[in-house]
Amino acid sequence: MSESIRRVVLAFSGGLDTSVILKWLRQTYNCEVVTFTADLGQGEELEPARHKAELMGVKQEHIFIDDLREEFVRDYVFPMMRANALYEGLYLLGTSIARPLIAKRQIEIAHQVGADAVSHGATGKGNDQVRFELGYYALDPDIKVIAPWREWDLNSRTALIDFAEKNQIPVPKDKRGESPFSTDANLLHTSSEGKVLEDPWQEVPDYVFSRTDDFVSAPDKPEEITVEFKGGDGVALNGKALSPAALLTALNDLGRKHGIGRLDLVENRFVGMKSRGMYETPGGTIYHAAHRAIEQLTLDRGAMHLKDELMPRYAELIYNGFWFSPEREMLQAAIDHSQAKVEGTVRMKLFKGAVHVTGRKSPQSLYSERVVTFEDDAGAYDQRDAEGFIKLNALRLRLLAQRDRTRG
Amino acid sequence: MSESIRRVVLAFSGGLDTSVILKWLRQTYNCEVVTFTADLGQGEELEPARHKAELMGVKQEHIFIDDLREEFVRDYVFPMMRANALYEGLYLLGTSIARPLIAKRQIEIAHQVGADAVSHGATGKGNDQVRFELGYYALDPDIKVIAPWREWDLNSRTALIDFAEKNQIPVPKDKRGESPFSTDANLLHTSSEGKVLEDPWQEVPDYVFSRTDDFVSAPDKPEEITVEFKGGDGVALNGKALSPAALLTALNDLGRKHGIGRLDLVENRFVGMKSRGMYETPGGTIYHAAHRAIEQLTLDRGAMHLKDELMPRYAELIYNGFWFSPEREMLQAAIDHSQAKVEGTVRMKLFKGAVHVTGRKSPQSLYSERVVTFEDDAGAYDQRDAEGFIKLNALRLRLLAQRDRTRG
Amino acid sequence: MSESIRRVVLAFSGGLDTSVILKWLRQTYNCEVVTFTADLGQGEELEPARHKAELMGVKQEHIFIDDLREEFVRDYVFPMMRANALYEGLYLLGTSIARPLIAKRQIEIAHQVGADAVSHGATGKGNDQVRFELGYYALDPDIKVIAPWREWDLNSRTALIDFAEKNQIPVPKDKRGESPFSTDANLLHTSSEGKVLEDPWQEVPDYVFSRTDDFVSAPDKPEEITVEFKGGDGVALNGKALSPAALLTALNDLGRKHGIGRLDLVENRFVGMKSRGMYETPGGTIYHAAHRAIEQLTLDRGAMHLKDELMPRYAELIYNGFWFSPEREMLQAAIDHSQAKVEGTVRMKLFKGAVHVTGRKSPQSLYSERVVTFEDDAGAYDQRDAEGFIKLNALRLRLLAQRDRTRG
Amino acid sequence: MSESIRRVVLAFSGGLDTSVILKWLRQTYNCEVVTFTADLGQGEELEPARHKAELMGVKQEHIFIDDLREEFVRDYVFPMMRANALYEGLYLLGTSIARPLIAKRQIEIAHQVGADAVSHGATGKGNDQVRFELGYYALDPDIKVIAPWREWDLNSRTALIDFAEKNQIPVPKDKRGESPFSTDANLLHTSSEGKVLEDPWQEVPDYVFSRTDDFVSAPDKPEEITVEFKGGDGVALNGKALSPAALLTALNDLGRKHGIGRLDLVENRFVGMKSRGMYETPGGTIYHAAHRAIEQLTLDRGAMHLKDELMPRYAELIYNGFWFSPEREMLQAAIDHSQAKVEGTVRMKLFKGAVHVTGRKSPQSLYSERVVTFEDDAGAYDQRDAEGFIKLNALRLRLLAQRDRTRG
Repeated sequence: MSESIRRVVLAFSGGLDTSVILKWLRQTYNCEVVTFTADLGQGEELEPARHKAELMGVKQEHIFIDDLREEFVRDYVFPMMRANALYEGLYLLGTSIARPLIAKRQIEIAHQVGADAVSHGATGKGNDQVRFELGYYALDPDIKVIAPWREWDLNSRTALIDFAEKNQIPVPKDKRGESPFSTDANLLHTSSEGKVLEDPWQEVPDYVFSRTDDFVSAPDKPEEITVEFKGGDGVALNGKALSPAALLTALNDLGRKHGIGRLDLVENRFVGMKSRGMYETPGGTIYHAAHRAIEQLTLDRGAMHLKDELMPRYAELIYNGFWFSPEREMLQAAIDHSQAKVEGTVRMKLFKGAVHVTGRKSPQSLYSERVVTFEDDAGAYDQRDAEGFIKLNALRLRLLAQRDRTRG
Repeated sequence: MSESIRRVVLAFSGGLDTSVILKWLRQTYNCEVVTFTADLGQGEELEPARHKAELMGVKQEHIFIDDLREEFVRDYVFPMMRANALYEGLYLLGTSIARPLIAKRQIEIAHQVGADAVSHGATGKGNDQVRFELGYYALDPDIKVIAPWREWDLNSRTALIDFAEKNQIPVPKDKRGESPFSTDANLLHTSSEGKVLEDPWQEVPDYVFSRTDDFVSAPDKPEEITVEFKGGDGVALNGKALSPAALLTALNDLGRKHGIGRLDLVENRFVGMKSRGMYETPGGTIYHAAHRAIEQLTLDRGAMHLKDELMPRYAELIYNGFWFSPEREMLQAAIDHSQAKVEGTVRMKLFKGAVHVTGRKSPQSLYSERVVTFEDDAGAYDQRDAEGFIKLNALRLRLLAQRDRTRG
Repeated sequence: MSESIRRVVLAFSGGLDTSVILKWLRQTYNCEVVTFTADLGQGEELEPARHKAELMGVKQEHIFIDDLREEFVRDYVFPMMRANALYEGLYLLGTSIARPLIAKRQIEIAHQVGADAVSHGATGKGNDQVRFELGYYALDPDIKVIAPWREWDLNSRTALIDFAEKNQIPVPKDKRGESPFSTDANLLHTSSEGKVLEDPWQEVPDYVFSRTDDFVSAPDKPEEITVEFKGGDGVALNGKALSPAALLTALNDLGRKHGIGRLDLVENRFVGMKSRGMYETPGGTIYHAAHRAIEQLTLDRGAMHLKDELMPRYAELIYNGFWFSPEREMLQAAIDHSQAKVEGTVRMKLFKGAVHVTGRKSPQSLYSERVVTFEDDAGAYDQRDAEGFIKLNALRLRLLAQRDRTRG
Repeated sequence: MSESIRRVVLAFSGGLDTSVILKWLRQTYNCEVVTFTADLGQGEELEPARHKAELMGVKQEHIFIDDLREEFVRDYVFPMMRANALYEGLYLLGTSIARPLIAKRQIEIAHQVGADAVSHGATGKGNDQVRFELGYYALDPDIKVIAPWREWDLNSRTALIDFAEKNQIPVPKDKRGESPFSTDANLLHTSSEGKVLEDPWQEVPDYVFSRTDDFVSAPDKPEEITVEFKGGDGVALNGKALSPAALLTALNDLGRKHGIGRLDLVENRFVGMKSRGMYETPGGTIYHAAHRAIEQLTLDRGAMHLKDELMPRYAELIYNGFWFSPEREMLQAAIDHSQAKVEGTVRMKLFKGAVHVTGRKSPQSLYSERVVTFEDDAGAYDQRDAEGFIKLNALRLRLLAQRDRTRG
């Protein structure tokens, strides 16, 4: 805290917490604060954040507000989806994948405005601090990082509100009481954790869900949709070409309606503890299923199995915050190499909380009805080849059995 | 075919195909045929198979009929489920896991009756021939293997039926026409493939499903259940202790009712082609979700991530038929080592084709509310530790950035 | 064998075996034979092969003789060396890496001359048949492949020589008796196997070695050399820029002189058996050590460890003949991504059969004396960061120990 | 530092540094110090350490001196060698593997004497602090850990010596000046790093080596030895049965004489920096080569390749200090499962800095001369099987080529 800071770029939502941080940074470091507010599809207006920053005296040229939705989906979500990434077998990494982009923009702004530090509002127990800061350091090794939640003494809600009031920061009424849980949202998902969710045996209360309708009261008839892919990425919905962000937005609407993409998870944080969260990833869940389905038709077995083996590591790297690392980039290079001909159309039924793939077709299909058919295949496959195939695959097992029988 | 065979143990279902094989083996090899019929939970009576064998003149002491359901679930399905095994990300390996057990019993019987050969009814295009034969050879390196579908010239339905009629083998009426698809069933699943399913764009017709009710017309209210685990394996349903096979049977009933466990898949066969199948794994799908959920609470991160990375290889080994191989056993040893304290209760909702985990608890939980809490944790976790953690994780990335900036 | 073949491209060395094959192909298939002879650095003149082909009546325009040494080292050996590939921990893959290039040229020539088939002289027990044929099929899925050793009945040396004599093929005197072992050679290595080498307990006799001098009688003083790298590949020896093939040739001379690169190995063939061979890889052994050493200085830890984990799979793919496969290419993409800044100079001592790295330096070094020093580091590293780093790495282990102590 | 400590178990060598720590612990924490000195084969007398502790007033019952050599080799070195573990492709992990055993004994002693803390003399930049402390925490989650080098202000040699003199701690003459490098030794290796070794381009000076004779002046004739294995572990040298520690000691003598096992390495530390060290692992280098050689003959291909793929992760875990972790134990379970029949005799030549395997034999050999032979194999292997094997391995590549040709 004794470091001298001149100018700091703060990831600023305009809410109570980051407003308090803005003030605290000035008081503690006697520094100038530059605010950065991004639209990643979290579903909030950005203008109030601008207004808030202005009110708090941030210079006009130091208020940065960016719509990053297309970049987010195109350069972060889609590349990750090419890997079919699931953390711990289930989690679609909605929070994890947004952090590197925020970190990247903060560093770009820092260079633009000549700031020597960056700051974020993530707590000291979570993964997000790690993801932000690994991103910062990877992109600017000399940047200074201020993590107020690890430094200050505003460790209770009351202390925070007291500080706000003492410093003329307006406290919205609904922030006076404790929020019953904590959330993060972007175009890919909303996560909820903490407080009422802390007991992993207690069912998640209905009021927690914000991105998906209840699947019990969802439409009683399945809705059939198609998603088209080209070069490994989604390009159209129901035959209509859409940009990456527009496609994910449309899938989110569909997923919300059918109650798709809820995940109650106990996960292992990088900082060493287990936590319980509720993730809602409506569009992402549909997209993930569709991508797997089109790969089934167009990806060679060797490529697919290698991808499957690399995936857990890849997902772990993203979860842990190593997006900007050589090993994530190496894995991405391998994955991307496999996607050139991942192209075609997937048909799915959306129904009461689930996605059901019902068909897929592709101009790049590797599926050969001629070879696989139970009918006469006109010599496309010689069944006698199987004997040699099996015999040589069995040879080492037979030599093993011969040894172990004789000498047991 | 020129080999001299004295006595052969045939995997015999009592159906048309294996009856024809029985006859063909005698004619072709002038050998004695021993029949082996297993109850793996495929839902068919075994006595008709006995009767059929008798009718075809198999000696009483050469008719083997075994109820292998408990052994199947306890020694094959559950060990595989400990790994959360999914082939190509989705397939629960219902057919693959049954083959090694059948192969093992055939070899045991061969040794018991002094047979020098074994035979099966799998075709030359599929995976099952590989799974059977790798099993045979691994357990008896000198056994002779007869695979009629690769040898004979009965390559059309008509030829088969002609052969049957010429040899006084009764042909059931419904076998006269071509069956519109081919199936395999056991306690874990039913698979359907071929013919009407061969176009991967065509939706699977309703009449294909035999193990699950349509999820659209399934009950309109979620059904809540609990599954208990001990030592990594399921031991009780809704508080009632059940044997492995009884537990899977009960979960199958629940899954059927709620339309759970349908999977429309295009997969890569070991023999090199893609095929399209419909799998119904009602109870297994519920069990798989429950096992993941109880691991979330009781498995250390290092153990879980290692398991996740090993899983695709493990699943591939089972799919390809290498159950009886040193490398599958090595992976099993690693996996089993992790399961001692995988214990506790998982609560789920079953609803219209999907399983939703809603809670889990365990006397062996590694989840610490005290550590994770957003509230005051009374020193259980020092947030300042995170700074050093991040700094040292970032160090190599900073050194990299310093190099690449300067010398770029 | 009953297939109709019009024109076949034969990998032709000009030796007795491939001359017999040439004749046998014509007799058996009544087809035209196109010969392809490559200089991969095996150390034999190519003109005698041309002469031989002419003598046997191959048309001038059907005799292909190519010097592929630069392509071999640049596009096959060096990319493989970027991975530090070792099969079964020890083997530098000298034979395996040459096969895909030969297969590729055969297919190119087949297309050029309108041939419908290719043929090679590899036996039915080895890996090379697999490597050739997987290459052929991957590059031309409709090509016909003739593998005489698997088809004909010339299964003894005597039968082969009889056939040669009956067909006016000159039999060199030294081919009359059995050769005491079999070899393969190219610019990367010479392998020897079979016959006198078949007992893995018997020491390899001195007369087997052809590429390396005896290390006991090698120079009594170490020779110091430097190798320079750029972009992951070797570019200079002792300060002198050399092309890939020239560099490997020069390293071979050095390795020969100092008895470097002998490997007595029992290995697992892809076809399922173990075999014993003696490999001599003089220059490759030096190069491999140098590449590892320059990576130590210039490769990030994450990149290096990922490479190390991927390497065994990559080496297995090359050994098994899957050079032209999507998964090898995916791994190559990942590996190549890491090599951009693998640049600098490695100093080594060559002495009596061994390579000793004694120093390395690089303009792209990631090694920071300032950070690592035992001396005062002027704040480059804050030792207190280590506490938090350790504490959070230990957290999950402590939670585990707490559980297991209490509930054991 | 403000924690209250009652009694601390210090890893105590009796040298200047740990003597200063002993004193500093008492002064700083006003606590009782228990000393623990272990013989891990570092080649130093233990009695002087006892005498030193007594002189400094440690109670007789608080001085612990253990000969752990057999336990070290049997339970740590040999299990690790079963994995053929090499960190970053080259390092035999001599320092890493000793730390867990020291940590385990410290915790056992702490429990025995009712101590509430442990302490070690490792610095804040290295790996050893991590290895010690992860071990402590894994074995006792509530233990307090004191790492003086991270806490005190004795950060220069002069400060340390001043402190010693002020506190009547005798300072040996040779400690007055700076040591030109830093070492660690045990029965497996001696490592040297720091100061004169800090420039990775500078050759390691001769005076650094303490465990191996110069290979240039080593004996001019190769020495032939045999090592016998049983159950994956070495059991005899030259036909003479030896305990684990005795075998490693004897191999060390042989390795020293022939200048074997020197490794000049730049490695990646877990704390994020690169460092340069010189390792001397004479006996371990011979043992490692011998273990690989006996596995070649007795290990199935599937088992060997799986081991090779798991090895880098396993080595990394040991290097990083995660010996007592579930994932290391899982990997060990897999590895150990493969070793039951790793048995037999390996013959090697030791010569001028290198080990050359020249033969291996085993009652558990999987090598079949009958199958592999170039001669008539009497039907042990049917060469025609290779065609089907290749065809089905090629099928997916052909389907791929067909697609990519047509639609490219």
